Amino acid sequence: MKLGNLIESQQLTPDILFSLFKSADEIRANPKLFSDVLKGKVVATLFYEPSTRTRLSFESATEKLGGSIISTENAKEFSSSIKGESMEDTARIVAAYADCIVMRHYEEGSAKKAGGVINIPMINAGDGKGQHPTQALLDLYTVYREIGRVDNFKIAFVGDLASGRTVRSLCYLIGKFSNIEVVFVSPENLKMKDDIKEYLERHNVNFREEQELSKLLPEMDVIYMTRIQKERISVEDYEKAKGRFVINKDNLNLVKKEAIIMHPLPHVEEIDLSLDIEQNDKRVAYFRQAENGLFIRMALLKMLLE
Amino acid sequence: MKLGNLIESQQLTPDILFSLFKSADEIRANPKLFSDVLKGKVVATLFYEPSTRTRLSFESATEKLGGSIISTENAKEFSSSIKGESMEDTARIVAAYADCIVMRHYEEGSAKKAGGVINIPMINAGDGKGQHPTQALLDLYTVYREIGRVDNFKIAFVGDLASGRTVRSLCYLIGKFSNIEVVFVSPENLKMKDDIKEYLERHNVNFREEQELSKLLPEMDVIYMTRIQKERISVEDYEKAKGRFVINKDNLNLVKKEAIIMHPLPHVEEIDLSLDIEQNDKRVAYFRQAENGLFIRMALLKMLLE
Amino acid sequence: MKLGNLIESQQLTPDILFSLFKSADEIRANPKLFSDVLKGKVVATLFYEPSTRTRLSFESATEKLGGSIISTENAKEFSSSIKGESMEDTARIVAAYADCIVMRHYEEGSAKKAGGVINIPMINAGDGKGQHPTQALLDLYTVYREIGRVDNFKIAFVGDLASGRTVRSLCYLIGKFSNIEVVFVSPENLKMKDDIKEYLERHNVNFREEQELSKLLPEMDVIYMTRIQKERISVEDYEKAKGRFVINKDNLNLVKKEAIIMHPLPHVEEIDLSLDIEQNDKRVAYFRQAENGLFIRMALLKMLLE
Repeated sequence: MKLGNLIESQQLTPDILFSLFKSADEIRANPKLFSDVLKGKVVATLFYEPSTRTRLSFESATEKLGGSIISTENAKEFSSSIKGESMEDTARIVAAYADCIVMRHYEEGSAKKAGGVINIPMINAGDGKGQHPTQALLDLYTVYREIGRVDNFKIAFVGDLASGRTVRSLCYLIGKFSNIEVVFVSPENLKMKDDIKEYLERHNVNFREEQELSKLLPEMDVIYMTRIQKERISVEDYEKAKGRFVINKDNLNLVKKEAIIMHPLPHVEEIDLSLDIEQNDKRVAYFRQAENGLFIRMALLKMLLE
Repeated sequence: MKLGNLIESQQLTPDILFSLFKSADEIRANPKLFSDVLKGKVVATLFYEPSTRTRLSFESATEKLGGSIISTENAKEFSSSIKGESMEDTARIVAAYADCIVMRHYEEGSAKKAGGVINIPMINAGDGKGQHPTQALLDLYTVYREIGRVDNFKIAFVGDLASGRTVRSLCYLIGKFSNIEVVFVSPENLKMKDDIKEYLERHNVNFREEQELSKLLPEMDVIYMTRIQKERISVEDYEKAKGRFVINKDNLNLVKKEAIIMHPLPHVEEIDLSLDIEQNDKRVAYFRQAENGLFIRMALLKMLLE
Repeated sequence: MKLGNLIESQQLTPDILFSLFKSADEIRANPKLFSDVLKGKVVATLFYEPSTRTRLSFESATEKLGGSIISTENAKEFSSSIKGESMEDTARIVAAYADCIVMRHYEEGSAKKAGGVINIPMINAGDGKGQHPTQALLDLYTVYREIGRVDNFKIAFVGDLASGRTVRSLCYLIGKFSNIEVVFVSPENLKMKDDIKEYLERHNVNFREEQELSKLLPEMDVIYMTRIQKERISVEDYEKAKGRFVINKDNLNLVKKEAIIMHPLPHVEEIDLSLDIEQNDKRVAYFRQAENGLFIRMALLKMLLE
C-alpha cells in the first residue's frame, strides 16, 4: 500500500488512492503539523518542456512540507544534454543531488526509462502523449471532496477528447471504481479514442457518446470541461470545434445544485461565465480543483519520501 | 495601520511608513530573531518581464524570513498564457499555491486588476509606466536612515525625469511630508511631467527646475541621480542628454559632508567616480540604498503575511 | 587553514584539502547533524552562462545545509547588464542580498575581479578558459575516497587534453603531493599544453605522453577519461580525435580490480559500457564522483560561511 514512484495512473490502486486522499485532507486541516516532513530533503523538478503551473504546484508542495527545490525548465538545453548526454545519464546525475525527481518530458515513456536507472523516487509530471498521473489524481480527489464519493456518480467529459491527456488519465482511474456512468461529448472530429473505450468496456464502465449538452446537464454530477487544443490540431479542425460546447450563464441553470463544473485549466471560450459567477457559484469547482492539486501532491511527496 | 496589499505608493501613509522603517531597523539589528517569521509560507514571484535585481531582492527577503519561493521570470510565456488564459486566471491559480504574489507586469494597472481577484496579498513590483511602490519605499527609507528624517530636507532629482518611474513614485511619498524642497535638474527634452508637478503643488511642496548642477550641489541634502533611459527614448534625445549631468570627483567636492548621493541603479556614465571613492566616501549611498531594499522588503512581507 | 573565498585551485593547500575531505566525510556520514549550518543564509548562483549541473550541485549543497538560494542562469541578460552595468556593480548589488556568490562567467579572471569588490565569499564556478576549482576539488576528493590516498598513485588522463579545463585544474592539485605518476593520452592534435607540463616539472611530478591505451591500463590506479569537446575544436580535429581512445567492455578487463574510471561527465562515445556494467562494476566511479561533488561543496560552503 505504498508507492516507490509514480509513472502511470494504473499504479494508483483504490487503497493507495484513499490513503492519499486521507493524507491530503489531514495536511489541509493542519498544515503546520507537516511543515518539517521533508526537512533536509531536496526535490528536483527536471522539465524538458515548460509547464509553469505543474512545476509551481510541485515546488510549492515540496516547500510547504519543509523541503527544498532544485529546478530547470530548460532541461532540453541542459548544458550536458546538448553535449550529447543521454536522458538516463542526466537523471542519474540529478539523482546524485536530489531525493526525488519530478520529470516532465516531451516523449512518451521517458519517465519510465529514467525512473529505471535511479535509486530515488521518480514522479511523472507528463510524458508527451503518455500520462500525467498526478493530474488524474487531483481530478479524482476533487470528485471525492466535492461530491463525497468516487463511485456511483455520473460524469460528462466535454470538448477535445482526442488530444486531452487529462481525460484519458482520469478514465484509467474511473475503471477502478463501480457504478460510474460516463458520457463523452465532443465535436465529431475530436472524439475519444478507441483504446480508452475498450479499457472502459473491459472494466465494465457504462459509457455513451452524446452531441447535445443541454439535454445532459440536468442529470450529471460532474461536468468535466476541456479546452480545444488549438496547438495540436489543424486550423480547420479548430474552426469546426471552437465554441461548439460552452458552459455559460444560461445553461449553468440546467446543472444540478449539488453538481460541479471541473476543468484542468487554462480555460478559454468553452467557459463563458462572469467573474461574479466564477467567484460565487459553488458549482464552479475548477479553481478549488487547482488548489486540490497542491494538497494531493503534498500527500504524494510525503508518501514517497517519508 | 496595516496593509492588505501594496499596489501603489499612495497607500503608504506616514503611519505605515514609520512602522515599516522601524521594523526594517529591528530586522537589520537582529536578523536571527526573524528567521522563522515566514516559516511554511510560500511567496510567488510572477514576473511578466525580467527584472533580475528586483526579483532577487524579494526572493532573498522572503528566504531570510524563513519563507520559500516559487518563481517564474517568463510569465509572459507561461504555458497557460500562451494557450489564452487571462492574467487574472493565472493569478488565481498561482494564488492557490502561494501565500503572497509579487508581480511585475508590462502593463499599467495589472497589479490592481490581478490583486482584485485573489484572496492573498499582492505586491506590485512594477507595472509598466505605472508604479513601483517598493522602490519608492526603499528610497524614502534610505533618506530616513542616512539623513535622519523624512521632512525638512532639500533634494535634487537629476537626469532623465521624463521616463524615470522611481522619481515619480518617490514624489508621491514626498507629498506626504512637510518642509521638503525639491529641485528637478534634467535636459530640456527629458523634463518632469506636469502631473507630478501638479501633485506637488496640491500638497504644498516647493519645487523648482534648474539647469546648473554645480550651483545646486552645495545646498542639497540628497542628490538623487538617474540614468538616461536609452531604451525608452529616441537616439537624438539620448545624444542630447547623455553626459549632460554627471557626478564626478571634481563636483563631489561641492557636496556637503553630510549629504548623500542616491541612485536607483544601474548607473552608467552619469556617475563617474573611481572604485576607491565609491568604496570609501560616505556620501556615496547607492549601494547601501540597494541593501536597504532588502530590509524594507523584509519588513513589508512581515507586515503583509504575519 | 581557512579560506575566505575560492578563486583558483592554487589556494587549496594540503591542509585545507584534508580539512575539506574530512568535513565532507562527516557530512555524508550524518547529514542531519548539518541541516541547520546555513540557516538564514542565502547563496546567490550568478551564472553568466548556463551550466545546469554545476548550478544544481551548488544549490542542492546549500539547501542540504539549511541555506536558501537566489539564482539566475541568464546573468548575461541580467536586466541591469543590458543597461550597461559593469559585472563588478552587479556583483556588489547581489552581495547586498546574499551571504555568498557562486559565479560562472565566460571570461577568464572574472571571479577574481568580482570577488575583489565584495565583502562576502566568492566561489569561482568556472571562468572561461580559466579555472573551475571545485571540479578539481571533487576530483581529488574522489581519488582520496576511492583509492584511499592522494599521493603515491598512477593516473592516466585520456582524451581531449588541450581544451579540458578539469584536467588542467586537477594537475595544479597533483603538484602539491608526492609520488604521483601522470600519463597523458591524447590524439596528436589535442595534447596537453606546455604550461601544465612546466608546472608539473617545477613540482617534480613525473609525467609522460603515450599513444596506446591498452598497454597502460594494467598499471594505472586512476583512468581519468574526458570527452572530445566538439564545440571548441574544428570539424577536422573532431573527426581525427573521435573514438580514438575508448573504454569498453574489452579493455575494461585490463584495468586493475582496485583501480577506478573517472570522468567529469557528460560522457559520450569515449565510454562504451552497458548499463549493466555501469551499475555493477565497482571500477566505474564517475557517478560516485558526481555525488562526491555534492558533499565536497557542502564542506566548502560550510568552511566559507560558518
